[in-house]
Order: sequence, then C-alpha cells, then structure tokens
Amino acid sequence: MIKARVTVTLKNGVLDPQGKAIEGALGSLGFEGVHQVRQGKVFDLEVDGTDKAEAEAKLKAMCEKLLANTVIENYTIALD
Amino acid sequence: MIKARVTVTLKNGVLDPQGKAIEGALGSLGFEGVHQVRQGKVFDLEVDGTDKAEAEAKLKAMCEKLLANTVIENYTIALD
Repeated sequence: MIKARVTVTLKNGVLDPQGKAIEGALGSLGFEGVHQVRQGKVFDLEVDGTDKAEAEAKLKAMCEKLLANTVIENYTIALD
Repeated sequence: MIKARVTVTLKNGVLDPQGKAIEGALGSLGFEGVHQVRQGKVFDLEVDGTDKAEAEAKLKAMCEKLLANTVIENYTIALD
C-alpha cells in the first residue's frame, strides 16, 4: 500500500475568483499585507501495491483523466 | 515577501462524501486498488515582510479564523 498526495493548483494566468474572495475576506478580518491568494485542491489516497514507479504512473493517469483539468490546472504527485 | 502554502484536510473520522465520490469515479474509470480517497484544500499566498516567525503566526491566525474549520479540519503551514 502506497500513500500519495496529489496537489492540483490553477495555472499561472488563470483567474481565481475564489482566491480573490478569500483575499478580500482576510482583508476584512484585519489581515493586512496578504496577496496573491490562490486556492487549489489536495487529494490524499492509498494505492495498492509496493512499486512506486507503477503507482506514480497510475496516479498520473488519474490526474489526466479525472483529478485535474489540465487545460487550466497543474498537478503534482508526492508519494509517502 | 514570504510565500506560503496552507493545506487544510479533514480530520480522521470525519466523513468525506466528496472523497468517496471520487473513489467511486476512479473505480468506474478502471482504476482498481485505490482506497481512502480524501479531498482537502490548499491555499497559496504571499505575506508581506521577511520575518518567518511573524508570518507563520499570522498564517496560523488566518487558519483559525477563516481558512480552516478547526472543528472538523486540520491545517498545516509551509513557508517557502
């Protein structure tokens, strides 16, 4: 069993209204000097097997097919 | 300017229907042997200043007040 964390973030240049809203909310709460807030997603999962290279290839396919929208998002895969 | 990444994940034992749905969808797409899918959030942001300890304290306050629901979520702060 291999534990993995997939992090999906918006590509540079893609507008992030959610991040902008969070930035505004932080300002309203009195947190000054916070910029460039961008929100992304993280997936923690467990993959059967012990071959890390195989697991990584499988996770990459999952990202391409389901977890990330590769037109506007980047993803990184970290194995435990 | 300090770059930071805040990762917010559900605490153990908190049900994650979204993660379950993703697990089901991965199964439908033919990805076998994937378990314990949990979805979380990631926030990338920039904080003014150069004092890392101060930035971390500020980020912790942001998490407690806005970014995480500490009843059901854990957060980790990573500074660049």
